[in-house]
Amino acid sequence: MGMSISDYLVFRLQKLGVKEFFGLPGDYNFNILKSIENNPKTRWIGCTNELNAGYAADGYARIKGIGALVTTYGVGELSAINAIAGSMSEFVPVVKIVGVPNTKFIKNNTLIHHNLNTPDYQAFIKAYSNVVETTAFLTKENAKEEIDRVLNVLIKEKKPVYIALPMDVCNVLIDEKYSEIEQKSNKDNLKEAAKVILELIEKSKNPAILADVMIKRFGAKEEFYKLLKNSNYPVTTLLMGKDLICDDESLNYSGTYVGKFGNPKAYESINNSDCPIFIGTVISDINTMGFDLKFNPDDWINIQGNYCVVKNTIYKDVLMKDILDELSNKIPKKNHNKTGFDYFYENVEKKEKLTGDYFYEKLQDFIQEGDNLVVETGIVNLALAKLKIKKNVSVNNQVLWGSIGWATGATLGVSMANKNARTILITGEGSHQLSATEISTMMRNNLKPVIFVINNNGYTIERILCDNPMDEYNEIAKWNYSKLPQVFGKNVFSANINISDELDKVFKIIKEEQKSKMCYIELNLDMFDLPELAQKSIAGNKLEKYSL
Amino acid sequence: MGMSISDYLVFRLQKLGVKEFFGLPGDYNFNILKSIENNPKTRWIGCTNELNAGYAADGYARIKGIGALVTTYGVGELSAINAIAGSMSEFVPVVKIVGVPNTKFIKNNTLIHHNLNTPDYQAFIKAYSNVVETTAFLTKENAKEEIDRVLNVLIKEKKPVYIALPMDVCNVLIDEKYSEIEQKSNKDNLKEAAKVILELIEKSKNPAILADVMIKRFGAKEEFYKLLKNSNYPVTTLLMGKDLICDDESLNYSGTYVGKFGNPKAYESINNSDCPIFIGTVISDINTMGFDLKFNPDDWINIQGNYCVVKNTIYKDVLMKDILDELSNKIPKKNHNKTGFDYFYENVEKKEKLTGDYFYEKLQDFIQEGDNLVVETGIVNLALAKLKIKKNVSVNNQVLWGSIGWATGATLGVSMANKNARTILITGEGSHQLSATEISTMMRNNLKPVIFVINNNGYTIERILCDNPMDEYNEIAKWNYSKLPQVFGKNVFSANINISDELDKVFKIIKEEQKSKMCYIELNLDMFDLPELAQKSIAGNKLEKYSL
Repeated sequence: MGMSISDYLVFRLQKLGVKEFFGLPGDYNFNILKSIENNPKTRWIGCTNELNAGYAADGYARIKGIGALVTTYGVGELSAINAIAGSMSEFVPVVKIVGVPNTKFIKNNTLIHHNLNTPDYQAFIKAYSNVVETTAFLTKENAKEEIDRVLNVLIKEKKPVYIALPMDVCNVLIDEKYSEIEQKSNKDNLKEAAKVILELIEKSKNPAILADVMIKRFGAKEEFYKLLKNSNYPVTTLLMGKDLICDDESLNYSGTYVGKFGNPKAYESINNSDCPIFIGTVISDINTMGFDLKFNPDDWINIQGNYCVVKNTIYKDVLMKDILDELSNKIPKKNHNKTGFDYFYENVEKKEKLTGDYFYEKLQDFIQEGDNLVVETGIVNLALAKLKIKKNVSVNNQVLWGSIGWATGATLGVSMANKNARTILITGEGSHQLSATEISTMMRNNLKPVIFVINNNGYTIERILCDNPMDEYNEIAKWNYSKLPQVFGKNVFSANINISDELDKVFKIIKEEQKSKMCYIELNLDMFDLPELAQKSIAGNKLEKYSL
Repeated sequence: MGMSISDYLVFRLQKLGVKEFFGLPGDYNFNILKSIENNPKTRWIGCTNELNAGYAADGYARIKGIGALVTTYGVGELSAINAIAGSMSEFVPVVKIVGVPNTKFIKNNTLIHHNLNTPDYQAFIKAYSNVVETTAFLTKENAKEEIDRVLNVLIKEKKPVYIALPMDVCNVLIDEKYSEIEQKSNKDNLKEAAKVILELIEKSKNPAILADVMIKRFGAKEEFYKLLKNSNYPVTTLLMGKDLICDDESLNYSGTYVGKFGNPKAYESINNSDCPIFIGTVISDINTMGFDLKFNPDDWINIQGNYCVVKNTIYKDVLMKDILDELSNKIPKKNHNKTGFDYFYENVEKKEKLTGDYFYEKLQDFIQEGDNLVVETGIVNLALAKLKIKKNVSVNNQVLWGSIGWATGATLGVSMANKNARTILITGEGSHQLSATEISTMMRNNLKPVIFVINNNGYTIERILCDNPMDEYNEIAKWNYSKLPQVFGKNVFSANINISDELDKVFKIIKEEQKSKMCYIELNLDMFDLPELAQKSIAGNKLEKYSL
């Protein structure tokens, strides 16, 4: 009777929504991989390296609400730590599982492979403890309790957790009954917070809403839309929450917030409001375009995943969905006019040589309802701000953590998590180099993302950030990108585009081709072809001496 | 007057032997990169990702005695932590430098990019503190003292150190005068240790020497050879110390030690000795082939880099080179017969289909004096045990840490460190996938390694380690490896070899081609074509049901 510990772990994760597990095998994790293979509802997805596997698990979790990464001890887990730290930074619930040596070696501190010269079997869990919400080192005695505990933390906090599982512990039988944590708000706190918020709103003239990514992470979209509909307040989103609202005309939406560097309607709606309501916001440098947000901390309404802060008071254990529901039932309409929404690509001039803006406008047309976008850090993330999206499009980016290479790896996870939707990756070539081999895993699994690699001849974002744009360290190896997928297989359409007419053609072609195969398009842009937002917010007049 | 702190750091490293710095740029490390560019004696080598850059710095340090890796904060440094942990495990002195945000952001705990959502500017240095010998977080007040301190630790301990350098601190001027640590033995301890060791040797009948990698790491090769010549004792080496002795007939050498699984001459010379002398050994599972070494701990002579252990007493601050010198002047000759050396590839049967053994015998012939070999973890490392090498050949492997992918990245560093020598990489294709893009950095820098990618259709070492060799998780994406370098440039010779005759031809071709370009050879072997050592030590009779 009972279930083996590794079977139980896989079973629990499957119940929480993990079908595909990402990672690489190693001789200390075989038992875990066997549990994945043996469970008829789960599948192992071997990747080309652990960092990419971590990115894939992160992308998967952004769509499915949970992801899992399995590596071996030491070498494997450390390779993936940046991906998991990114999940931590951006509230992406990934379970990091590591197969560790047999308990007898741990007890005797035996020097077996993948150890430091003086073995310390706690060294790597200690390293991880700095970048995850909680860790567990399983023993046959604590395994049941610890698995249940860390999964409850993940469910509640939406952050990654780390589980170390010794080889021999995997096979020990435990009771498979469990009860999942029940998430509910503290009723008194909820009531009090709602009351104080509504008082602030009541006495205000022009409340406005700033919405962001934590609404997605904490599963409060439905309640958020209800609030918008019942209030008709102006709403804008930060870049990380880009996909919360499409061009839905029933809402009072002004597009993405980019500070003073564009979209004045969004800027004014928030900064001229006497009652800005922040919902699920991440107030970081890039996400706010330089912390350019006016609000009075003494009157601040800051609604987060499981707490809110109002008038400098923290109300703990208040779930976002509960407070939004509560507010939407009582919120006063204020007869706001529509702010209007005109911050998107339109009427871009078509030049012979392909330009970034021309591509983004065409991409905007190409996007369909239900698509998944994965957008790399750097220039493309700034171009994204102005991209108009359609209903049920998910936009996945990494504005806070900003690890270059993330998007290519995450595309594996995003497209795996939602095979029925189209997945579109937009990446600069500099970032793409860090994780490009992972497209082989997509091809091996018959995934069919559309991949745009923008080749602007080096790290353009860094060229405009540093003193001298032509400093040698911003150059990179020159690849024939469109030849790369052919190294990995035949079922791919690839192209290398230089002029606008070619782009028009290729968009027609991939509309059909993407149904049956991966499409991989290299777009050659000028080195300093910048989206307006990058030009205004970073480059300024730095590039005047370079021919644009 | 004085020197900026980042200039000083680069200057100190250059004086210690770093010409090339590996890494990736990021907006927090620009000032450090400028110091590298501005120093006429140093060069920046941009890599395709940070883990590979870390491997390259590790490879470089194995040849030059020191290496340096520069990344950006958070995302960059965490990506490289596995490489640095590997350097720690195997005593490879790499300086890990990270450019961190401006001090004012650190002081105010500002949420700028590459941070966790709740910023903790100590999180990543804390993660690193588990895998390096020492860390320093520089301020303008402590920078001089701390740089000098950590470099002295590196010089003394031959292990990696970590330096965090905030952007603004880089530009502060400091005094450039410094005094390097003077390394010397404690004379009393040295004398006492030598006396006790010589007493043990005197009363023994057949002393024998087991030599290993720390002799290289601690720069004691000269004294070691003197000891061998003056004593004529039988000597064998562990796998990590493979290159300490070539087929030099003047020494009483029996080849590489592989426990009971081969080379009985080496096995007997050590295990039948009444006085085994261990010099610079790493007593780990794989390096000893399962801890298969007989010695009496009460009489153990264990000479390490800066201490030795004799008869259960530790003598601290005894430098290996000093004690070996001392011993070699007084060591009694014991008129040993030659054990003989016959553990190498010879008379391998030539079949039509290429076999591993046939390749290794041809490789043995191909190797010239002064070559650098880089040998990946897994099957190829086990095949290496039997490879006879020539004078001044360096063999670089990672037997203890065993991070797959290391060898391809390390080849960049090894070939950069010694451009006049030939560098030869031997890797399995499974490992190669983890870091394969780094060959583009080699091509970009006109390096000309000879690369052998052994394609045995998956992770063969894991197939023979796990219960069921055909478990799906040991399969990998199928690449057209020999097409890969063509994605990165034209100046390469590549080939895909299936039969023995083709291999004969290709060895002739690359002898010439490697003078002007990289040579990249894919070798297709049967899935279970194992070197004898892998067959005997791991596979046993597990493969009987599979057609070999």
